Amino acid sequence: MRPRRFAVCLLLAVSGSAAAQPPRSPRARDLGVPFAFGAPGRENAITDVAGVLVGHTTLVEGDSVRTGVTAILPRGRGDAARTPCFGAVFSLNGNGEMTGTHWVRESGIVEGPIVLTNTNAVGVVRDAIIDYAARRWPPEGDGWTVWSLPIVAETWDGTLNDIYGRHVKAEHLGAAIDTAASGPVAEGGVGGGTGMICYEYKGGIGTASRVLAEASGGHTVGVLVQANHGLRHQLRIAGLPVGLELRDGLRRKEEAGSIIIVIGTDAPLLPHQLERLCRRAALGLARTGSVAGNGSGDIFIAFSTANAAIGETERTVSLNMLPNERMGALFEATVGATEEAIVNALVAGRTTIGFRGHTVVGLPLERVRDILKRHRLLEPTR
Amino acid sequence: MRPRRFAVCLLLAVSGSAAAQPPRSPRARDLGVPFAFGAPGRENAITDVAGVLVGHTTLVEGDSVRTGVTAILPRGRGDAARTPCFGAVFSLNGNGEMTGTHWVRESGIVEGPIVLTNTNAVGVVRDAIIDYAARRWPPEGDGWTVWSLPIVAETWDGTLNDIYGRHVKAEHLGAAIDTAASGPVAEGGVGGGTGMICYEYKGGIGTASRVLAEASGGHTVGVLVQANHGLRHQLRIAGLPVGLELRDGLRRKEEAGSIIIVIGTDAPLLPHQLERLCRRAALGLARTGSVAGNGSGDIFIAFSTANAAIGETERTVSLNMLPNERMGALFEATVGATEEAIVNALVAGRTTIGFRGHTVVGLPLERVRDILKRHRLLEPTR
Amino acid sequence: MRPRRFAVCLLLAVSGSAAAQPPRSPRARDLGVPFAFGAPGRENAITDVAGVLVGHTTLVEGDSVRTGVTAILPRGRGDAARTPCFGAVFSLNGNGEMTGTHWVRESGIVEGPIVLTNTNAVGVVRDAIIDYAARRWPPEGDGWTVWSLPIVAETWDGTLNDIYGRHVKAEHLGAAIDTAASGPVAEGGVGGGTGMICYEYKGGIGTASRVLAEASGGHTVGVLVQANHGLRHQLRIAGLPVGLELRDGLRRKEEAGSIIIVIGTDAPLLPHQLERLCRRAALGLARTGSVAGNGSGDIFIAFSTANAAIGETERTVSLNMLPNERMGALFEATVGATEEAIVNALVAGRTTIGFRGHTVVGLPLERVRDILKRHRLLEPTR
Amino acid sequence: MRPRRFAVCLLLAVSGSAAAQPPRSPRARDLGVPFAFGAPGRENAITDVAGVLVGHTTLVEGDSVRTGVTAILPRGRGDAARTPCFGAVFSLNGNGEMTGTHWVRESGIVEGPIVLTNTNAVGVVRDAIIDYAARRWPPEGDGWTVWSLPIVAETWDGTLNDIYGRHVKAEHLGAAIDTAASGPVAEGGVGGGTGMICYEYKGGIGTASRVLAEASGGHTVGVLVQANHGLRHQLRIAGLPVGLELRDGLRRKEEAGSIIIVIGTDAPLLPHQLERLCRRAALGLARTGSVAGNGSGDIFIAFSTANAAIGETERTVSLNMLPNERMGALFEATVGATEEAIVNALVAGRTTIGFRGHTVVGLPLERVRDILKRHRLLEPTR
Repeated sequence: MRPRRFAVCLLLAVSGSAAAQPPRSPRARDLGVPFAFGAPGRENAITDVAGVLVGHTTLVEGDSVRTGVTAILPRGRGDAARTPCFGAVFSLNGNGEMTGTHWVRESGIVEGPIVLTNTNAVGVVRDAIIDYAARRWPPEGDGWTVWSLPIVAETWDGTLNDIYGRHVKAEHLGAAIDTAASGPVAEGGVGGGTGMICYEYKGGIGTASRVLAEASGGHTVGVLVQANHGLRHQLRIAGLPVGLELRDGLRRKEEAGSIIIVIGTDAPLLPHQLERLCRRAALGLARTGSVAGNGSGDIFIAFSTANAAIGETERTVSLNMLPNERMGALFEATVGATEEAIVNALVAGRTTIGFRGHTVVGLPLERVRDILKRHRLLEPTR
Repeated sequence: MRPRRFAVCLLLAVSGSAAAQPPRSPRARDLGVPFAFGAPGRENAITDVAGVLVGHTTLVEGDSVRTGVTAILPRGRGDAARTPCFGAVFSLNGNGEMTGTHWVRESGIVEGPIVLTNTNAVGVVRDAIIDYAARRWPPEGDGWTVWSLPIVAETWDGTLNDIYGRHVKAEHLGAAIDTAASGPVAEGGVGGGTGMICYEYKGGIGTASRVLAEASGGHTVGVLVQANHGLRHQLRIAGLPVGLELRDGLRRKEEAGSIIIVIGTDAPLLPHQLERLCRRAALGLARTGSVAGNGSGDIFIAFSTANAAIGETERTVSLNMLPNERMGALFEATVGATEEAIVNALVAGRTTIGFRGHTVVGLPLERVRDILKRHRLLEPTR
Repeated sequence: MRPRRFAVCLLLAVSGSAAAQPPRSPRARDLGVPFAFGAPGRENAITDVAGVLVGHTTLVEGDSVRTGVTAILPRGRGDAARTPCFGAVFSLNGNGEMTGTHWVRESGIVEGPIVLTNTNAVGVVRDAIIDYAARRWPPEGDGWTVWSLPIVAETWDGTLNDIYGRHVKAEHLGAAIDTAASGPVAEGGVGGGTGMICYEYKGGIGTASRVLAEASGGHTVGVLVQANHGLRHQLRIAGLPVGLELRDGLRRKEEAGSIIIVIGTDAPLLPHQLERLCRRAALGLARTGSVAGNGSGDIFIAFSTANAAIGETERTVSLNMLPNERMGALFEATVGATEEAIVNALVAGRTTIGFRGHTVVGLPLERVRDILKRHRLLEPTR
Repeated sequence: MRPRRFAVCLLLAVSGSAAAQPPRSPRARDLGVPFAFGAPGRENAITDVAGVLVGHTTLVEGDSVRTGVTAILPRGRGDAARTPCFGAVFSLNGNGEMTGTHWVRESGIVEGPIVLTNTNAVGVVRDAIIDYAARRWPPEGDGWTVWSLPIVAETWDGTLNDIYGRHVKAEHLGAAIDTAASGPVAEGGVGGGTGMICYEYKGGIGTASRVLAEASGGHTVGVLVQANHGLRHQLRIAGLPVGLELRDGLRRKEEAGSIIIVIGTDAPLLPHQLERLCRRAALGLARTGSVAGNGSGDIFIAFSTANAAIGETERTVSLNMLPNERMGALFEATVGATEEAIVNALVAGRTTIGFRGHTVVGLPLERVRDILKRHRLLEPTR
């Protein structure tokens, strides 16, 4: 069984990567959903931040395996990936796990990939990152390798996935890293998002970006979410309380989902400035209606790919910093891209049957369009 | 001159209190603006939390004095006011001042009034609180009185007010406390909100509340804001991006406003749970469009009037606590009441001319209603 | 090989538990080292806090396996262990990992065991805790079991242990829990402390406690450390800079150790009060000379076994709270017990040869006694 | 009366400045007290950090005025003082006030002076800083001046000082700034420290510094404390529990003092790195025996005078950063200088009679020397 599962996983991993990208399904913006705060980048994805790669390992097998791993590599996969980034975290509601954050907070540094998976797989994936690095960059003497305090975050997929079956293995982390690519990012039920549920619809991975006007610095902000949060009645799209109308397929449980939000930028921000971006992700989340329920692990992480010299450990390092006074446009970009990434995750969700026959329906796109149209908020589609 | 100013101030203080309340202007809900997350209390104000008093001293004099003081008394004005409350704070964007918060964070306790004023008056008001308490409850021996680490927050009113003229005096703090009342709360350009600007419209004080269903615990959450934040294009009302249409009277400056949000509840929450409410205020703020700009001092404070025994300093105290698992409805209430309090501040704002002839227009209520109507979001008014 | 290793581990686990406790080696206090701030409990251990169990799985095999797992169970092993405790964390220097802390900070709650191991084993142990709980208390429906955000902390033992060999397995977590006991706690190179180094001497597990006078509440504070931190020249014992004299066996490397400090108490403290205890652990650590070096993961966690009703999730809970004003004696107790636990870890350390023949010497007890005697600080031994 | 008091204050201010410095009393190091972690700078004071000025206004009048103001100017007094510094704060025990810290935390920036005074004078001094700046650098248009979120910290001097008499006035802030000087810093009962009590001895202002070896970067760390904390039995000097022997003049009250610690450095540290220094101040404090009692406001602030370009608000700024890996020596320097600054405050304390005849004795220097000698810890004096 195990070889077969792995084969499936690799296949899906490849199909989730840029190389074999099928004709892309329409995304929220394609459907006429309006979004605020400027224009997206080429892919409207976190990969619009130069150098950032995203890879998914998607595990769909039999009746009950619906899970996976998503890896975001801030500085790609080669030796450049040994260079840390400035980074920061913020926990809006800490009913969840993101490992490695004590050191992010202390050092202001994100080292290695940021990996998303299911709740019960955090440990195996976390250790697998260390082993992956140790194979690629063996530790010297009795020292350690890079990536020794790995960053792994989770949301709970136990409704659609046999989460106690422990189907995520170390090799799935490797596959996600090794197939990570720039360009378009598969969304919805892929990678770590495979079994996720958002506002009681099928959720999962979503992404979006904003490119600032040159006058505002021309920087790019990209956001990627693993969206597994929210109750239906809270859902807002384009500001409209669509969740009050869309009452199909309710699961009517206490919220126990979560959302992990990853923010990348090429703006030269220091750690304390990146923490400011993290807090803005909360504002983007709020625009989709969430109140960050008690059961929700809403933990956000930001990194900047600028300042590539910070890997230096011996000598004083030269850095660039964007003044705080110039951050307003980045705040808007973060809020806008976060809101859009979440709606993209919903739009990409497809009705899914999983563990014990549990079914989660996908967002009914036509009905959403109808509601927006009725309220004169639907934008003309291209 | 000074005596006259004081007379004016007292007069206004009285007119701002419940006693002489004129027929109340319509509030956002009266105009048909829809709000989420349950029903408000009797006054739709923070004073719906039993025992909470609010008092304003409004200073409007000549061409350039447009400022004041607002005091929120969690446990009223008598000796009960010596009893602390559990409390917590959260800074969404700390470009502002709220004194006393080191001790709130450390002790989990809010002592004495929470007072709002202009940026430059924080010191005089802060010291005045100590003196007020020392007069009422003289310190014993070489000890100290209650309220010795006062909580004073601010937003900047230097556009409409001669803020460097230092027109706020110690006696204005006393007047705000002494005229504080339960019942309806004056909104808009009163008290600390007198000279405030919100989304480039006249802002100031706003308030709202939610009463939970009995099944959800029946608790009350009240919110009061001093709203001085936001750029016009960001403004959303009822989810609609009304700020994109309403382009009159723009001041076109970098955001340098702020919003102070005060949350009161009678739910028996511990300090760490109250901090959770504070973070939800950020989500309510986001629903009005704010991205918490760099220049904004967005600092929030919450208190619970339950657990009146926590004044005990010698013996183990008996407390009640609402389980975390029961907080979801309180989160929704906080988000909803915060959004509504901000829109109430805008609705109560009136075009104001002040310092150096600067004019800030009030929210054009009919145009807002028209926009909501056009988008089929206007609710029937009562 | 694997079965044999497991047999060794179980044997050591048993020998590390109370049942087969050999005549105990002298501890710091037995040698005449003076300590401050009151009297210890019966075992001078974290197990003096009623109900707390400690279990070690010690892995010593061949030339290069020197590692293990230590589990602290705040509410024992039976169904009572499903009941959470109030808890809090503090990171003095976050160059390390402690999983589960987002939820501790958010909820104020510690659920399940607190487990210490080596850096690279955090993942496997973390997942093993979930599996352990799921076997004992199977999740209902598509819900989850208790202990689903496990608390696992680490320090680095890669000098003495083949840390990349991944010798810690899931079953070792189970053994540590299953053999956990009240009563005396084995110290030094046992459990998670097996391969640890402290001030360039052999370190590892240490513990101590304080029992407050009845007038101060009569509460117990117990501390357990996994001590792997510090440079020799920094070391202070009884306030004396003994590290300036003891220059044998120096490893002369940048500090890359860490210390995890676990504080338990039966005093009825709320989460924010427990965080106050955590910060005092830093003060106890400082008394042994540490400056919390850049490479050190100095992360502290505290729990209170009082308030057993907080497992309730439906109804308002009745709690007890010690007033802040009564915490002074607990602060002293925490500082004193932390200092003593660290010195106990050093005193229990024995010269150890491990990975690649690396040797770490134990603290030379007679020389330490001589120094104390010369400075007239040695206390008469019993 | 008021003019006379002001005259006295100015006189004392001048006498406390470098210009008229009398032959300096011996400091702790002169008396043979050993200190750890390297060598001090020329003045063994925070002013060893180039550009830093310190000024005291000392108010001693009649029987009951024993208070004052101390100003630390990170970038001097001229137009350079408009340029902000990177900065950070840490609250070890927040039973106190330090204004302006929301913005320090948010922006990573310290603007203007750091001012120390008594608890009840925080407001008047805080507002006075704004007025001082507005006079010197008038705001343009309806904007604001620099220093608009002033940093003022306090400790309680109500035992020796008629603190409710409000003897600190706005002009005393001006005098402290205007007389601030580089060079030696007056210690003990001067400036904000005039009425302070430390370990139940006369305390107040103390300072010390460390200059790192060239191999460690050659940077300077300076510390200045306003020491008003601790109970006698806790006091340690040179590691020795001298407080257990020195039982004279006990005041036997619950600790209600506080210590403010200011750390300056010329090392190019970013805000998150400066926060790391702040946490080390706690470790230095611990070495003098404090447990950071419940009543203690132990709030620390650090700034770096490097990176003078950060006043830029329009363009991307070029910065320098010391790698985290190079911070170890700065940590030791901070711990060492903090410990020494506190002992210096005690050594400079003189028996003082004040409010209501309360008397606080000075540290008995000869007895302390005797104890150190008996324990063979007294160093030969120069």
